[in-house]
Amino acid sequence: MPEAVVTMDGWYCLHDFRTVDWTAWKQASNEDREQAIHEFQALIEKWETTEKSKQGSHALYTIVGQKADLVMMILRPTMEELNEIETAFNKSKLAEYMTKAYSYVSVVELSNYMGNADENDPEIQGRLKPILPKWNHICFYPMDKRRQGNDNWYVLEKDERAKLMYAHGMTGRQYAGKIRQIITGSIGFDDWEWGVTLFAHDMLQFKKLVYEMRFDEVTSRYGDFGSFYVGNLLKTDEIPQFLHV
Amino acid sequence: MPEAVVTMDGWYCLHDFRTVDWTAWKQASNEDREQAIHEFQALIEKWETTEKSKQGSHALYTIVGQKADLVMMILRPTMEELNEIETAFNKSKLAEYMTKAYSYVSVVELSNYMGNADENDPEIQGRLKPILPKWNHICFYPMDKRRQGNDNWYVLEKDERAKLMYAHGMTGRQYAGKIRQIITGSIGFDDWEWGVTLFAHDMLQFKKLVYEMRFDEVTSRYGDFGSFYVGNLLKTDEIPQFLHV
Amino acid sequence: MPEAVVTMDGWYCLHDFRTVDWTAWKQASNEDREQAIHEFQALIEKWETTEKSKQGSHALYTIVGQKADLVMMILRPTMEELNEIETAFNKSKLAEYMTKAYSYVSVVELSNYMGNADENDPEIQGRLKPILPKWNHICFYPMDKRRQGNDNWYVLEKDERAKLMYAHGMTGRQYAGKIRQIITGSIGFDDWEWGVTLFAHDMLQFKKLVYEMRFDEVTSRYGDFGSFYVGNLLKTDEIPQFLHV
Amino acid sequence: MPEAVVTMDGWYCLHDFRTVDWTAWKQASNEDREQAIHEFQALIEKWETTEKSKQGSHALYTIVGQKADLVMMILRPTMEELNEIETAFNKSKLAEYMTKAYSYVSVVELSNYMGNADENDPEIQGRLKPILPKWNHICFYPMDKRRQGNDNWYVLEKDERAKLMYAHGMTGRQYAGKIRQIITGSIGFDDWEWGVTLFAHDMLQFKKLVYEMRFDEVTSRYGDFGSFYVGNLLKTDEIPQFLHV
Amino acid sequence: MPEAVVTMDGWYCLHDFRTVDWTAWKQASNEDREQAIHEFQALIEKWETTEKSKQGSHALYTIVGQKADLVMMILRPTMEELNEIETAFNKSKLAEYMTKAYSYVSVVELSNYMGNADENDPEIQGRLKPILPKWNHICFYPMDKRRQGNDNWYVLEKDERAKLMYAHGMTGRQYAGKIRQIITGSIGFDDWEWGVTLFAHDMLQFKKLVYEMRFDEVTSRYGDFGSFYVGNLLKTDEIPQFLHV
Repeated sequence: MPEAVVTMDGWYCLHDFRTVDWTAWKQASNEDREQAIHEFQALIEKWETTEKSKQGSHALYTIVGQKADLVMMILRPTMEELNEIETAFNKSKLAEYMTKAYSYVSVVELSNYMGNADENDPEIQGRLKPILPKWNHICFYPMDKRRQGNDNWYVLEKDERAKLMYAHGMTGRQYAGKIRQIITGSIGFDDWEWGVTLFAHDMLQFKKLVYEMRFDEVTSRYGDFGSFYVGNLLKTDEIPQFLHV
Repeated sequence: MPEAVVTMDGWYCLHDFRTVDWTAWKQASNEDREQAIHEFQALIEKWETTEKSKQGSHALYTIVGQKADLVMMILRPTMEELNEIETAFNKSKLAEYMTKAYSYVSVVELSNYMGNADENDPEIQGRLKPILPKWNHICFYPMDKRRQGNDNWYVLEKDERAKLMYAHGMTGRQYAGKIRQIITGSIGFDDWEWGVTLFAHDMLQFKKLVYEMRFDEVTSRYGDFGSFYVGNLLKTDEIPQFLHV
Repeated sequence: MPEAVVTMDGWYCLHDFRTVDWTAWKQASNEDREQAIHEFQALIEKWETTEKSKQGSHALYTIVGQKADLVMMILRPTMEELNEIETAFNKSKLAEYMTKAYSYVSVVELSNYMGNADENDPEIQGRLKPILPKWNHICFYPMDKRRQGNDNWYVLEKDERAKLMYAHGMTGRQYAGKIRQIITGSIGFDDWEWGVTLFAHDMLQFKKLVYEMRFDEVTSRYGDFGSFYVGNLLKTDEIPQFLHV
Repeated sequence: MPEAVVTMDGWYCLHDFRTVDWTAWKQASNEDREQAIHEFQALIEKWETTEKSKQGSHALYTIVGQKADLVMMILRPTMEELNEIETAFNKSKLAEYMTKAYSYVSVVELSNYMGNADENDPEIQGRLKPILPKWNHICFYPMDKRRQGNDNWYVLEKDERAKLMYAHGMTGRQYAGKIRQIITGSIGFDDWEWGVTLFAHDMLQFKKLVYEMRFDEVTSRYGDFGSFYVGNLLKTDEIPQFLHV
Repeated sequence: MPEAVVTMDGWYCLHDFRTVDWTAWKQASNEDREQAIHEFQALIEKWETTEKSKQGSHALYTIVGQKADLVMMILRPTMEELNEIETAFNKSKLAEYMTKAYSYVSVVELSNYMGNADENDPEIQGRLKPILPKWNHICFYPMDKRRQGNDNWYVLEKDERAKLMYAHGMTGRQYAGKIRQIITGSIGFDDWEWGVTLFAHDMLQFKKLVYEMRFDEVTSRYGDFGSFYVGNLLKTDEIPQFLHV
């Protein structure tokens, strides 16, 4: 039985994708729409206060294509807080004009194959409790390590896994400054084993990174992927424009 | 043909996941909402009476993410009782404001690979008819033992299976006090072979346990998993707050 | 090319699973509900007359869990009759308060691996045109014989298949008196190759039988399964109580 | 790279499966229902005129089970005509009381493994532009040739494929007079590679044929199947009765 | 770890498939319908202006079968523009009478296995920023390169992949003048790795090309396909006729 790697875990994470019911939204009165937008902005202001006090972080992006219209990505120290935020949004006026599109439950995770990372190191703490960048673009996808016939990640020895992960990390390192990556673990929490959230200034970098990584053995033989969601930054003050009808 | 293991079976089990239709709930009159909550609390009081008399048990948790808003997990001596409870809830006022999200039908099961467990032993009886803990967090997922090419659990000899299950049990034992696990069998009852329900004080323990177990051969080669649902304890007296709009 | 087995085929079979829309049902007037129930009971009386004259058979069970609320299993000499019964139900008042959950189209089938069964034998005729038992519980699932890599049922020689089926039958025989099994063939009729309908006095026997059979080579290597539906007998005179709101 | 087989292609084909919304249909006024039926019959009369002039063909069958209530199978020389017919039906009054259940887009195809068929041969032309029989029963299913590990149809040499197809054809030939088969190709048009439409006087022949063929190597190792739809002939003058509520 | 191929990327691409809710559309007032059509035509005029100034391109086709009623294929230099176009359509009056059917997010891509293409070459630029042809027919499908057991594209050396892609290209070249092909990359953007959009004067060419290519090793062993959508050109001035009820 191969040895598991001890992971370091930080803030819990909820990706919450929603789709606007534009027909219902247009049928609402001006007053209702304004109230819904104000209430949503008030929620976001609360989130911003939390972020400023480093008790959590969040990101808001529109999504391209029919899978969803926007995603709220929320980081918090406890799952109860995520649950409360989600429920508060569900009870809000804006939620009456939206349908649920997809969600993902996970926790910020650093794997520690070398076993030499110190969880109390401030840099590690910063990565476990990250303030999400407000870069132009987001890309989210969930993934598994494959367990299929001869391609079974979980029967490999730890050294072999460490070597493959190291090479994978080297590929990623070439995108430093271009892509910021947040890995969240979801084994035991949601339907895939990990969530990957990428931020970029230039959308094309997502494709370049994910394509190049597909040739890493850790991906070519051991990676299985769920749906990909990409989108554009939605600043708080752009919300009224986005929702203007 | 390998020998099957004689299992011991206890109370029947229904996991019933529901999603609140918040828009409809908000549109209801105060009176209707109060009546719906009171009726639901009355149902739960009945369940609590049953639990006190050790004729069954239940748990109520909210669920994080869009898969569901809450889960009712119900244990009873007969499938008829589960059917009645489910139908009673379906007919209740609160159910008018909810949609069905997922359900799972199973029976509490102890496998007996050693063949030395005595079903009449009070401790065994306690595990077959468990009073569910009211710990902070729940995690539920269904699973199969794989039958795929060379990874076929059901062609292994009983001794081999016993050995693998024993190692698996050793992994689980390290989480004693941190995680309480209820295994329910669902071969012939529902779409997967087993349901796993975990309770924990600390949500992170779910991830640690499930991740560590993934390296056990019984999982790495023979485990297939369905959707994972996690959530937070919803005490009876917190229901009005949860449903407050 | 391996030789196919000549099967004997009896009555056509429709499993029709429905879910009650309880909210709509409660909103109906008392008069509408009574009319719907009477109309449904009249349909069932017609089915009972057919059954008494041995021109068909039927069973009515509630289903546990969210997959459905009830199943009507109908046997008739022709597919046209099944189609008419289904359409008659669809046009009925009760159907206005139900949604379709699942259906399965098949024909009662006896495989004849030994080739020595006489289709005109009254016992064989009784099995091809069975009067369904009114036992406490039902279990239905569809299944395929696997055609995957080295586990391909349809490339085995007839003798090998006969041997495996014989062992499988021996497992089943141990449940005589506890479980009554109706095999219906659906190759060319529906999405799986066979439907299996089990009846039992004790629900736990379903799990014991299906679990034990999973170790038979015919299942461990060659069996693929669809969804499992279990439920409890719904007698005609219990319908008003079941639908009482 | 194995050599492809040059196929001969005839009329384009649309299978259009619909489900009646019986509740809405019953709520419609008598006048609306009559108008809907007359309009539908007028559409069919147009199709019959086309069929008489050998510019196309069509078939109308009810479907058993919940997958659909009826199927319209339409053959025409161009895809534009199919699109127009589909849109005309969508705009019709009857379509207001129906939901879409499934559709399949393909073209009548004769494979020509021997390479000796003459496309101008009147018999070949008759098979490429077939007038659909009005036999009692229909069976439709889509299928693929498998490309999986060692079972990969598309890496076989043409001679090997021809041999396997020939044996398969021999199996089919035994059903001459009992089953009429229309093969339509859908590579590049729809989600499976072929559609198979069978017509029979006796529904049981579908099961016998498809079962027997499953043992042909071309199927046992190389055949993958989608959903099966079976139904009964719906004559034009039976439509009012079928829709009578 | 095999070497990835550096791709050249052009305009971003959104395929947006929609289905008309004909019942709602018929219930709309003449005025509302006219307004919806005019608004849609105004959107298209804007797109045409963009196309004339070579800042993007678009195509509008009806779709055969129930998967969708029409597709808007839009090319633009940035993902933000695609997002804006999509949102503008969603907010339009016509969108009130349509449901979302499918969408695909990608970017025009030229693979450069030889490594000798010059991205600044005007011909290459023309292929990266293509003006879509207004040919009679469209065919769209997404695809993956397989990573499964021994059939794993991403473990092949670059030379081997180049050789297989070259042979594949030779097959395609035979359809020059008959089929125009736009390859869009979607690794990191959507659920499949590539989108393939074909245009043809004669619909049958799609089937011939896709069938013939299926025997290329790059497809037979390494190609996995999603859903296929085919349709007919919908000219701007034909929209009122298409939507006439």
